[in-house]
Amino acid sequence: MTDTSLDFRVTREDLTRFMQAALVAAGANQASADAVSRALVTASRMGTDSHGLRLLPHYLKALNGGRINGAPNMVFHQRLAATGFLDADDGLGHLAGFTAIEHAMAMASEVGMGAVAVGNSSHFGAAGCYALAAAERGYLGMAFCNSDPFVLLHDGAKPFHGTNPIAFAAPVEGGAPYLLDMATSSIPWNRVQQFGAIGRELPDQVAADAAGKVSRVPGEIEALLPLGGSSFGFKGAGLAGMVEILSSVLSGMQHGFKLLPMGGPDMATPRGVGHFFLAMKPDAFVEEGTFARGLAEYLADLRAQPATPDARVMAPGDREWRCQAQRDADGIPLDSANQSAYAEIAKQYQLAPLSRLD
Amino acid sequence: MTDTSLDFRVTREDLTRFMQAALVAAGANQASADAVSRALVTASRMGTDSHGLRLLPHYLKALNGGRINGAPNMVFHQRLAATGFLDADDGLGHLAGFTAIEHAMAMASEVGMGAVAVGNSSHFGAAGCYALAAAERGYLGMAFCNSDPFVLLHDGAKPFHGTNPIAFAAPVEGGAPYLLDMATSSIPWNRVQQFGAIGRELPDQVAADAAGKVSRVPGEIEALLPLGGSSFGFKGAGLAGMVEILSSVLSGMQHGFKLLPMGGPDMATPRGVGHFFLAMKPDAFVEEGTFARGLAEYLADLRAQPATPDARVMAPGDREWRCQAQRDADGIPLDSANQSAYAEIAKQYQLAPLSRLD
Repeated sequence: MTDTSLDFRVTREDLTRFMQAALVAAGANQASADAVSRALVTASRMGTDSHGLRLLPHYLKALNGGRINGAPNMVFHQRLAATGFLDADDGLGHLAGFTAIEHAMAMASEVGMGAVAVGNSSHFGAAGCYALAAAERGYLGMAFCNSDPFVLLHDGAKPFHGTNPIAFAAPVEGGAPYLLDMATSSIPWNRVQQFGAIGRELPDQVAADAAGKVSRVPGEIEALLPLGGSSFGFKGAGLAGMVEILSSVLSGMQHGFKLLPMGGPDMATPRGVGHFFLAMKPDAFVEEGTFARGLAEYLADLRAQPATPDARVMAPGDREWRCQAQRDADGIPLDSANQSAYAEIAKQYQLAPLSRLD
Repeated sequence: MTDTSLDFRVTREDLTRFMQAALVAAGANQASADAVSRALVTASRMGTDSHGLRLLPHYLKALNGGRINGAPNMVFHQRLAATGFLDADDGLGHLAGFTAIEHAMAMASEVGMGAVAVGNSSHFGAAGCYALAAAERGYLGMAFCNSDPFVLLHDGAKPFHGTNPIAFAAPVEGGAPYLLDMATSSIPWNRVQQFGAIGRELPDQVAADAAGKVSRVPGEIEALLPLGGSSFGFKGAGLAGMVEILSSVLSGMQHGFKLLPMGGPDMATPRGVGHFFLAMKPDAFVEEGTFARGLAEYLADLRAQPATPDARVMAPGDREWRCQAQRDADGIPLDSANQSAYAEIAKQYQLAPLSRLD
């Protein structure tokens, strides 16, 4: 959730500087530090606070614990003209992600599309960053990732899938890309906590207690429902399974149910996260220019649709681009928890602290 | 919904014979009749009754009206090594679908993956049939299609997207494929009608009245909500948009909002439906055999998960394969509406009627 009332705000340049210094101090090489700061700052600018600057302390802990290799030797194995495997050497998932989508785009420029399965990786932040990286260069991009279990199967009583996200981005001529980045769960875990913090009941059909029974009481929640809730959760669960198959089965990794928890306590053992990236050349199917014209027309028609009272119809990404413009102008806010965490990091690594904007 | 209490049942061979004869009588060539009967019989065997034998009268009407070309000259334009466009020449979408996924598999066998955008097509039945056709030959398959507007945007007051399905299938060694075939709406349209017929309230957050206001009264429903309902419908709407971009924008067709209604009244004007198909070789990323082993392990772990009381955890497709085994043994049921429709067709085209199983 965007909270622009927070009065501790920083520039993205200063945030990038700080993140990179901290990551390098914790043992990351420059390429890894560049990739992590690029992904986290992208997410924070767009208002995806759950996957933005909040994650820096986690990555530092994983580097310090030895779970993540700060100076990996990532090797790309091209298998066929449109497919390959990136061994991420237990490095930061962000470097794996940006590296893999580059290889996918290189293949797409030759044969129309390209896909890269990534293995021996780690948490990569927001999936949307890598789809977006493709769209910014004129390609359709897709990104998928598995994660440790938080989400029930349809009719299941115990978490099995992770929030297994799907990201899809398409380039828009003269405008910001179409950008969908969604978990295949009904609700994000941190939204459940937010409802709890303000004492509100959850929407129906989005989360369950320890027995797998649907509950609207934040304090009882032990698992998330798949997208579609009790009646149609087979859709979310099936999408999560598709993401799992693409991310871990294609790459030869363990599937998400067997992943060590992201949050620890074990911060020493590599997790072996899998990702999957796909890039397509928009003009690889019909005449050049057709795609750009068609997408512009589709988006214009979409944005012209009538909305319900007090609402507004938006294309995926519209909310994020608006937030980005605002935060680029006013700065990126840090809530009090993040202010403390970043002050602590500055002390620990003897870094110049973030400069608070006036 | 599977209704095995129906006592009018036919063999799939007889159903195929009847469908093909009717389609040929209405002007379809043998290749088109083969493709339609293959798709409809596949769906009916699996219990996907909304996309099975029920659709035959519709296709006959569209052939008779001239909207659909029964003897199309479908031309495949290979653009790059992994991508191409199939011009379906206003023929039956089923022939376009099976033709396109064949081309996608041929490219995948060479370069690891292949995708085909299809234009100038028509309704193709169940998207799952084409993903399944890939999985039956050892490929991962995906299928997407746009359709005329029934589904609201997130916060939208008027239908904009079609039910825009996503199908994904993966081959399972020695077993039936993983098969996900889902609309990106919250609920299928015919399910709303079924609730109405038995006087039941709809689940919350799945459908809306003419003003776009969520309603649980089947008789008031004028639009479906995107998957995710009022709170998280941006997910379903974003997925529908992804399907739209892949199906119509990549293929240079009009997007779904501008499609003529499938149900008429105009049965003379071609609709220009778009589809998108993708095939991937499972062993195009890591060592041969890794994918098969990993998928078997994932599915075994999934099926061993505990379920909520009176429920059972299933993988996508499990319900369908069970129904298929039962209907292959006992016959495919026709409800009274379909019995009348098929008797009418037999009369109209002077065909031997379906043989009712004892």
